[in-house]
Amino acid sequence: MIRIGLIGTGNVAIALAREMYNHEIITIVQIIGKDQNKLPKDLIHIPFSNQFNSLPTCDVVLIAVSDNEIQNVSNQLSLTDTVVAHTSGASSIDLLSNHQHRGVFYPLQTFSKQQHLNWSEIPILWEGNNKLVNEKLKTLSQLLSPLATQIDEKQRFSIHLAAVVVNNFTNHLYAEAHHFCKSEHINFDLLVPLIEETTRKIKQLDPRESQTGPAARGDTQTIQRHMAIPMTKELSDIYSLFTSQLLEKSNENI
Amino acid sequence: MIRIGLIGTGNVAIALAREMYNHEIITIVQIIGKDQNKLPKDLIHIPFSNQFNSLPTCDVVLIAVSDNEIQNVSNQLSLTDTVVAHTSGASSIDLLSNHQHRGVFYPLQTFSKQQHLNWSEIPILWEGNNKLVNEKLKTLSQLLSPLATQIDEKQRFSIHLAAVVVNNFTNHLYAEAHHFCKSEHINFDLLVPLIEETTRKIKQLDPRESQTGPAARGDTQTIQRHMAIPMTKELSDIYSLFTSQLLEKSNENI
Repeated sequence: MIRIGLIGTGNVAIALAREMYNHEIITIVQIIGKDQNKLPKDLIHIPFSNQFNSLPTCDVVLIAVSDNEIQNVSNQLSLTDTVVAHTSGASSIDLLSNHQHRGVFYPLQTFSKQQHLNWSEIPILWEGNNKLVNEKLKTLSQLLSPLATQIDEKQRFSIHLAAVVVNNFTNHLYAEAHHFCKSEHINFDLLVPLIEETTRKIKQLDPRESQTGPAARGDTQTIQRHMAIPMTKELSDIYSLFTSQLLEKSNENI
Repeated sequence: MIRIGLIGTGNVAIALAREMYNHEIITIVQIIGKDQNKLPKDLIHIPFSNQFNSLPTCDVVLIAVSDNEIQNVSNQLSLTDTVVAHTSGASSIDLLSNHQHRGVFYPLQTFSKQQHLNWSEIPILWEGNNKLVNEKLKTLSQLLSPLATQIDEKQRFSIHLAAVVVNNFTNHLYAEAHHFCKSEHINFDLLVPLIEETTRKIKQLDPRESQTGPAARGDTQTIQRHMAIPMTKELSDIYSLFTSQLLEKSNENI
């Protein structure tokens, strides 16, 4: 049995708790957070405390808090033999430098309280500062996902940037399109099959090769017609930037 | 039986031919195009011609060619009682003004030769210039999809713009992220579960409310760390624009 101490009550902590508490080999011995009420009802049976010094003996402590709180939390933990790891894609392992055995355990996914995710599809990118940490984090991550991968800090920061692009920025495009449709009295749901197909395509094709649309084919007439439609400043700026980048690429292909 | 004449051998024409040729109630009497070899093998048994005047009698002629060829094709068709419709989201019905019965039959989806799509999930947005056209296009589109919707030109141009945003622009984000990962020796496939989850979320939540990430939470430290990573000019411009728009929204929420 791998005994986990979990610090945090946010989306990542909740997703970890859901998966680990009922796991055959992993168990959560305690969750530490400011307020137990932040946990959903299905996690209410896990031992909870708001005192850092109450943590029972465990193999790995996972710090799943906001990036700017990691160091503060780490400094409040006085542990000697325990592996301490944070779950952030964008924070250095050095934030845990008061611990002899430190690591990173970064699940590359977007979490929300409502959604119960299948961990076998979540890449877990891990890093340790010594052999003992590497062994423990490798075992832990492989128990949760076949997509567990050791990765160094430079690559982790890079993949975090790429994740921001494909998740946060894509969602921002959806949000702008959603807002635009509302203002034009168009049902946004009509676009959902198209969005799903766009996603399906990336599993089969290099997205650069499957690029379609007016800008990619240099269709300036359609672009002019689009630009005559009233848009918010945000959408208009996005339209201009993406169209000019895609037009440039279409010229390269001639 | 509804008899269709289909003009074109591109992705939209192929997708229509695949769905219509084996349909119980619809049939394709002929495909007209420049080169039969452009059709995939599974469509080789459909009658084909490169002569516009060879078209047998049919109920509806669908012009599924590039936007800038629609008018030219329309002018070459001398038909009196037949409904003639183009399949473009971004072109006016007026391109077919030489026909008494004209319409638009726009399937809102991205098509590729390889992919066999489920038409029951494709919104078909149609428009006619008179009652007869409306009746024929309504029947035809409803036979193919429960998401058939009558829509006027203004709304069609708007939804086409929104489609460009959620499909072409999203794919451009994927392409830039793909290129970036390659240059950093990161396996892009690690991002696929995240992309899939981002798509799943829009079915349940307003994308504006589910926006996450460093910019949305005003995490300038992480943003600075990202901006220190070498990127192409394209990705860097996208990063700056999206981050500033999301930071602005995060300030509005404070």
